[in-house]
Amino acid sequence: MKEYKPQAKWKSKLHEVIYEADTPSGKFFDIVLFILIIISVILVMLESIDGFDEHYHKTLLTLEWIVTIFFTLEYIARLISIKKPLKYVFSFYGIIDFLSTIPLYLSYILAGSQVLLAVRAFRLLRIFRILKLVKFMGEASQLQSALKASRTKIAVFIYVVLILSVILGTIMYIVEGDESGFTSIPKSIYWTIVTLTTVGYGDIAPQSNLGQFLATVIMILGYGIIAVPTGIVTAEFARNKHSEVEDDNGYVVHVNTQSCPNCSVEGHRDDATHCYNCGHPL
Amino acid sequence: MKEYKPQAKWKSKLHEVIYEADTPSGKFFDIVLFILIIISVILVMLESIDGFDEHYHKTLLTLEWIVTIFFTLEYIARLISIKKPLKYVFSFYGIIDFLSTIPLYLSYILAGSQVLLAVRAFRLLRIFRILKLVKFMGEASQLQSALKASRTKIAVFIYVVLILSVILGTIMYIVEGDESGFTSIPKSIYWTIVTLTTVGYGDIAPQSNLGQFLATVIMILGYGIIAVPTGIVTAEFARNKHSEVEDDNGYVVHVNTQSCPNCSVEGHRDDATHCYNCGHPL
Amino acid sequence: MKEYKPQAKWKSKLHEVIYEADTPSGKFFDIVLFILIIISVILVMLESIDGFDEHYHKTLLTLEWIVTIFFTLEYIARLISIKKPLKYVFSFYGIIDFLSTIPLYLSYILAGSQVLLAVRAFRLLRIFRILKLVKFMGEASQLQSALKASRTKIAVFIYVVLILSVILGTIMYIVEGDESGFTSIPKSIYWTIVTLTTVGYGDIAPQSNLGQFLATVIMILGYGIIAVPTGIVTAEFARNKHSEVEDDNGYVVHVNTQSCPNCSVEGHRDDATHCYNCGHPL
Amino acid sequence: MKEYKPQAKWKSKLHEVIYEADTPSGKFFDIVLFILIIISVILVMLESIDGFDEHYHKTLLTLEWIVTIFFTLEYIARLISIKKPLKYVFSFYGIIDFLSTIPLYLSYILAGSQVLLAVRAFRLLRIFRILKLVKFMGEASQLQSALKASRTKIAVFIYVVLILSVILGTIMYIVEGDESGFTSIPKSIYWTIVTLTTVGYGDIAPQSNLGQFLATVIMILGYGIIAVPTGIVTAEFARNKHSEVEDDNGYVVHVNTQSCPNCSVEGHRDDATHCYNCGHPL
Repeated sequence: MKEYKPQAKWKSKLHEVIYEADTPSGKFFDIVLFILIIISVILVMLESIDGFDEHYHKTLLTLEWIVTIFFTLEYIARLISIKKPLKYVFSFYGIIDFLSTIPLYLSYILAGSQVLLAVRAFRLLRIFRILKLVKFMGEASQLQSALKASRTKIAVFIYVVLILSVILGTIMYIVEGDESGFTSIPKSIYWTIVTLTTVGYGDIAPQSNLGQFLATVIMILGYGIIAVPTGIVTAEFARNKHSEVEDDNGYVVHVNTQSCPNCSVEGHRDDATHCYNCGHPL
Repeated sequence: MKEYKPQAKWKSKLHEVIYEADTPSGKFFDIVLFILIIISVILVMLESIDGFDEHYHKTLLTLEWIVTIFFTLEYIARLISIKKPLKYVFSFYGIIDFLSTIPLYLSYILAGSQVLLAVRAFRLLRIFRILKLVKFMGEASQLQSALKASRTKIAVFIYVVLILSVILGTIMYIVEGDESGFTSIPKSIYWTIVTLTTVGYGDIAPQSNLGQFLATVIMILGYGIIAVPTGIVTAEFARNKHSEVEDDNGYVVHVNTQSCPNCSVEGHRDDATHCYNCGHPL
Repeated sequence: MKEYKPQAKWKSKLHEVIYEADTPSGKFFDIVLFILIIISVILVMLESIDGFDEHYHKTLLTLEWIVTIFFTLEYIARLISIKKPLKYVFSFYGIIDFLSTIPLYLSYILAGSQVLLAVRAFRLLRIFRILKLVKFMGEASQLQSALKASRTKIAVFIYVVLILSVILGTIMYIVEGDESGFTSIPKSIYWTIVTLTTVGYGDIAPQSNLGQFLATVIMILGYGIIAVPTGIVTAEFARNKHSEVEDDNGYVVHVNTQSCPNCSVEGHRDDATHCYNCGHPL
Repeated sequence: MKEYKPQAKWKSKLHEVIYEADTPSGKFFDIVLFILIIISVILVMLESIDGFDEHYHKTLLTLEWIVTIFFTLEYIARLISIKKPLKYVFSFYGIIDFLSTIPLYLSYILAGSQVLLAVRAFRLLRIFRILKLVKFMGEASQLQSALKASRTKIAVFIYVVLILSVILGTIMYIVEGDESGFTSIPKSIYWTIVTLTTVGYGDIAPQSNLGQFLATVIMILGYGIIAVPTGIVTAEFARNKHSEVEDDNGYVVHVNTQSCPNCSVEGHRDDATHCYNCGHPL
């Protein structure tokens, strides 16, 4: 058996509060964090409304600073309390957390750094940790595995749809003149995808008889084509259901949201005492 | 065995007429009620048409008063004939019935009480009681249970779609200028959902090349995403079908629309003599 | 065993040509008929194009007369050659055939009889008889039975969707003013259905912030709702498939397009010598 | 056993490079070819953008010539290195390759030969050969077989939808006047298909009350109808899955992209030494 250097008491405590949602303090921290994330997202939205930003510019900026400072402190705390900070820094949530924190700092250096604000919405995914419901996690992972299993098939499907769009778009460009809005092949391809996916804005629409006839063919094609991804995903779901019934044997493992202080892996069993990934005591 | 105070004869008779649809008089009452509900809904519609309301204002108001008085009497009768009136008052149909009755009274006190008129449409759900067809009830409950079973999965799905919409909407706001209609992030998110769900009004549409390219990506995403709820519900339906076959053993229970005079619970078996919920004789 | 009065030779021959597609002359008749049906449908379309009708009015009228005369002769022949003409007259195809024949005659008596021209398109369904392919018939009947089995469920579903549309339409009418196009509740309900079904014309679109927010909710609802009919039909198809496998036992019955000269029933087995419905010799 | 005339060494080498993707040189050739195909497709797009073509006309023409010369050389090499050139010439890829090569030559002889440029997009299908992944090939063929199996059913379905569109289009033409855009029956049918498939451009939209009511009915119809192709394809996918599980017996055959130098058939097993089609040594 391997030996582990005991972590400093306060670090271990901080780790529990920040990374886990099973203790009261951990849960409280997560809820406060989630409310701040929602506020940060709403702030970004309000700033974008012209009239609103003019009237309440100072209030918005103050709130933005409060959120940014909290996010900064949280990010630093996460770095300190974990044994392998680099692993966190380059993890999915690590990158999201970093990009959500910096836009305000960057805005004093660079113009147009507001693009990063869009990243903040990803932090909303944290709700799944707070809900701490195995049920939700199970549902989400079931969705994920069904989508994963049908990934290649969907990739093949989308590639074929794209080729089809290029071909049909080129034909529509030749058939329809500039007056109908089909000014170039890329624009025609855009129209073809708008039609195939049954979105149908109507900003560009065929005017000639032949163009409208071809559009009809494309729509009926799209009608048939939309059945394919649905068929793929449904068959995958139906199969998942099946395997669930046959493999379970009445033995369902309950996992919690504790994350290993050593390697940050999550999803340990409720009765686990060591990390299943690195063996570190929990 | 518990003893029950015998209900007054006329109350018991009234209960049968109003709450049950198995006797001729009960059926007649339900049909008259349903016709009045339809009339009340049509009245609300006609009142909203400007030209029509000007010409026939008096007729419409008279009819509205007739419907309201009938609804008022019906509501009072329902309160009197049932043993536990509070249970009815706070039940789903109780609240709907109350809100459908009061708008005309309220209109003399409050302006803008017409919002409550929308509630009347809920009363149309009563048709399922009138049809009294076990088949319809079975179908409806099958739909309901399939949707219930896939509730969590659909909640997770919608939450992820909303996060995605916030992210994509923010990006589109940055990419597209104000001229295309993307005047604020909330408006951009509105556009993203219009596109993702393949509704595509076309009131807002990307004009720049990059915007149209991103729109294309969003549409193809929406194409794949629409497959997910379909897959979830279909797998649930398919499973329901299965369990139906395996559990039935040729034994199908027929229920009727009688409701218990004591606790208002419905769905008693045809051969039941006591309420399955409170034991009160039927 | 029952006795049958032998039919006149020429009548029996005529019956074979008109009602059956198994003999060369029967096949030839059916193909000629189908070509004339297609011509009759195209004629109706061409007559509706303003410029075209002005230039070629005489040609179109002549062709219309040729088609009408052929249809008239065919209808008379069908009446003569069958034993129970009334059965044919009131059958689905009998009514279609009659309504497809009379518009031109009626146009000299009544104005606006062109509505009946739309009925002609129903005659295009005859192709399934001409194709005479058991495969096609089987596929069509499989589609039909799947839709039939899910009929009640779809009826319940559509009724609930309509109630929902009335409620949401009324709310949108109250929220949005007249300027956005929500001029009355019926118009609002029209918009709600346009949105729920993801058609999205954009002729009416919410302008206020609250209206756009509600529209978003309706769209996501529609997203979930569209999964329900798909789920119903798919589960039905999947079940159909299953039963096919289990019930067939390697014994597939081949049917042909012969119809009984006595009762017009179709779908007799290839090796049948008597009608399975009335026992008349084939 | 048949005898085969040994092919010239250089021809055999050329065949390996051009037709196979298993050797390093074959892979290199395929990747270079695919990049050139992508460039050729992008060139066609750029040429269609007015401003872009004016500025960079010379550069585009030069690049077009480079691509065309490479395609020409490739086409000649394919003809030389294969034993039965005619088989290649009239194969799917042979025709695509030829049509992708000639537009530039033709443009000096004929005007409007750019229609052929749309054909080039088909060459993008070559990526499936380059990816050389059995997985992708398997997925693609699974998609293909599911679509093939549901072909007849989808054909019946589309035919019925078309008849329905003609009927509903004619009715809408009669109901709506010219002002709403329903100027002729073909235009009305175009609108009906736009609505039934839930595309909904909004370039033509009903204005009258009756027209909007009928449109609502068509939309709800389309709602139900869209479930049918999805149901068909999904049931087919689900069945495919099933057979996969039952038939495999743990024995999965791996195929590669080698093609026979004699008959061009592909999909040989990894351990094959002779073509499964003609017996020629590989």
